[in-house]
Amino acid sequence: MPRDSLIPTETVIALDSVPIRFGLGASQELGYELNRLGVRRALLVADRNLRQFGLVEKLERIVRDAGVELDVYDDVHVEPTDRSINEAIAYARKTQPEAFISLGGGSTIDTAKAMNLFSTHPGELIDYINKPIGQGKPVPGPLKPHIALPTTSGTGSETTAVIVLDLLQLKVKTGISHRYIRPTLAIIDPLNTLSCPPMVTACAGFDVLCHAIESYTARPYNVRPAVENPAERPIYIGSNPISDLWCRQAIEWCARYLRRAVFNPLDLEARSYMALASTFAGIGFGNSGVHIPHAMSYPVAGMVRDYFPPDYDVDEPLVPHGLSVIINAPAAFRFTAPAWPERHAEVAAILGVETRGMPVREAADALADAIKQLMRDLGIPNGLEELGYSERDLPGLVEGTLKQQRILVGSPRPVGEKELGEIFRAAMRYW
Amino acid sequence: MPRDSLIPTETVIALDSVPIRFGLGASQELGYELNRLGVRRALLVADRNLRQFGLVEKLERIVRDAGVELDVYDDVHVEPTDRSINEAIAYARKTQPEAFISLGGGSTIDTAKAMNLFSTHPGELIDYINKPIGQGKPVPGPLKPHIALPTTSGTGSETTAVIVLDLLQLKVKTGISHRYIRPTLAIIDPLNTLSCPPMVTACAGFDVLCHAIESYTARPYNVRPAVENPAERPIYIGSNPISDLWCRQAIEWCARYLRRAVFNPLDLEARSYMALASTFAGIGFGNSGVHIPHAMSYPVAGMVRDYFPPDYDVDEPLVPHGLSVIINAPAAFRFTAPAWPERHAEVAAILGVETRGMPVREAADALADAIKQLMRDLGIPNGLEELGYSERDLPGLVEGTLKQQRILVGSPRPVGEKELGEIFRAAMRYW
Repeated sequence: MPRDSLIPTETVIALDSVPIRFGLGASQELGYELNRLGVRRALLVADRNLRQFGLVEKLERIVRDAGVELDVYDDVHVEPTDRSINEAIAYARKTQPEAFISLGGGSTIDTAKAMNLFSTHPGELIDYINKPIGQGKPVPGPLKPHIALPTTSGTGSETTAVIVLDLLQLKVKTGISHRYIRPTLAIIDPLNTLSCPPMVTACAGFDVLCHAIESYTARPYNVRPAVENPAERPIYIGSNPISDLWCRQAIEWCARYLRRAVFNPLDLEARSYMALASTFAGIGFGNSGVHIPHAMSYPVAGMVRDYFPPDYDVDEPLVPHGLSVIINAPAAFRFTAPAWPERHAEVAAILGVETRGMPVREAADALADAIKQLMRDLGIPNGLEELGYSERDLPGLVEGTLKQQRILVGSPRPVGEKELGEIFRAAMRYW
Repeated sequence: MPRDSLIPTETVIALDSVPIRFGLGASQELGYELNRLGVRRALLVADRNLRQFGLVEKLERIVRDAGVELDVYDDVHVEPTDRSINEAIAYARKTQPEAFISLGGGSTIDTAKAMNLFSTHPGELIDYINKPIGQGKPVPGPLKPHIALPTTSGTGSETTAVIVLDLLQLKVKTGISHRYIRPTLAIIDPLNTLSCPPMVTACAGFDVLCHAIESYTARPYNVRPAVENPAERPIYIGSNPISDLWCRQAIEWCARYLRRAVFNPLDLEARSYMALASTFAGIGFGNSGVHIPHAMSYPVAGMVRDYFPPDYDVDEPLVPHGLSVIINAPAAFRFTAPAWPERHAEVAAILGVETRGMPVREAADALADAIKQLMRDLGIPNGLEELGYSERDLPGLVEGTLKQQRILVGSPRPVGEKELGEIFRAAMRYW
């Protein structure tokens, strides 16, 4: 299907989005939605830490009141690994539910996505993991219904077509992405996020902020060559007027509400808008893509040696996803600022920098400072050093990042080994 | 499923949206999408006026090149009636295609929606037409695939779950609405809008502008009582932070690009952003709803006696939909301004009014003036009088509007018989 040869670059924006039910108490509609889909037997995949707040029990009651038989799987690993995902898949293959419900953060929702994929279609993880690490096989057909209920305002996984996981032996974080992986419905109930502890709220919120800023500053969709066949169009197409809209609004809400949500966990207004920001940023970046901070986050998380984050209930070292992203963001955005100063300056202004009367190039650089201020305010570590990294980790960090070509192509400024080394060095210590 | 009794008002926003392929040349992807859906035999429902520009032939070629058998139905009525729709339905019931493709404006897309509904499920028009005129029966199940390709930037019908039609005997415009009516995919190719003549572009563009402004000023979703059962939630839920985002952007683009698209039909940038504005406003109002100007438009269109609009190729009197809406808009927004001055003032500012330093109530009133200016610039008639209406039509116009309760409930200010009479009187002549 050759495109008109007068139009050699990409001209098409593809937007697939998930139906949304958003609002206080929206979880109550889960029963109705399961009935509407004709589901009689479902599997709830839940973060077991939510049991102490009664959230798992609340959902069990809603589902059973709707006359739907329910089984619960709560052995979800924070930041899923090939091992944890394979265990979950084995469970789903054995029990073969008609539909999946996920209740938790991105780790839980991604685990449920994998259980759905591999209990619907045959194959091994490596078959579907993105190239060059895996085979990048397309998902052969639609999956079973999956209703996602996020309990953190972070990944936006409820809206995206991606599963992120750690490969333990390769010590690399990677993903599986295909449109069929997107959940059937996202039920976003801010009441489910009230129990999220401060540091988890902060890290998740920084993930939202980076999704939105990276997406908003990503290389535009129309500077790529046109695809010969729409099937070859990447899921991450680059910034475009549709994702811009979602992302700009998400940045505004992060600027206004993230501090409030961290310092006043019961601030319902702040929790509500952070939940909506997370979903908006998810729809935005799920369409346009992220770039350098996310690409760098993968080895930062994967190579962790001895960092234990506050407020996370884990028995092994962990750099939470949002932390591994934000820790590189000031250095990365200072690097990308020259490629699109207007966009960086606009984001700086939304984050509260007084940019009027400031040269645009200077305002673009001020974005990094605004992010650093927000990190300090919310108790984020002062750069990679505080996470246990030093100069001698640079080669490994750079190598791990270079494996994320699928994401790095989204950078508005070309970036290779040398540039990544400089960005990582700048991210070692900020203040 | 009783909601928590501490939350007596509505708290949930439901957003269902259609997947989108937007951009210059996007029509070329129709074949790929039909193949992906597994369609072997499709019916193209097209506006026959597009034949002179080669648009119907272009689509026929794309579909046949994809190996899909194609039949064409081009007997579409501008502003569909029960008679024209029933003829189209009879054709679809006889030919039973596996999928529908629509190419045209709202009239064409709505006709295809009706052909799809009534060739998939049994029943008469009146069974599904909204109450109180019809039975308002819910659509029993999903329909066949329907890919919509708009050729005007107006109705946004490619994104909505509504069919609008005239009932000839009752002399009333009404609709059928249900989530299953929404097309499967919208392919929005600005190249398909280049042939749209100036007055059609203006009328369609004013429809976009009114969708967006009405939706943005509609009574908020959270001041309604909560629904007992999600199935009872209206399709038009009222303004909310999600539809606000779409609508504000659509208003901005109308302000910047509508004049350019009318006066320079080949201005690709203006055509592109008007096409996107139309879709955005469609997603916005399709979720939140419209109010007084749209409710008033129905009898204004239905009671036409002798008005023939320029640039429309019709053999009977017609007030095009967009014209029947905008003709009431200045009077209607002056009436609603006191109920939500901030929103009206914000829209006035987006439309170019210098509102800084102006009291908000005054800025809210200035919205009507900004719209009047745009109407004059684009050659829109000076009020209802120029369409052939006079003082003695007021009772009929008011009565026809009062039948549109489903839409009138969206007004931010309560409106009854007396108020409608005053608004219609104010709409008789503007300058």
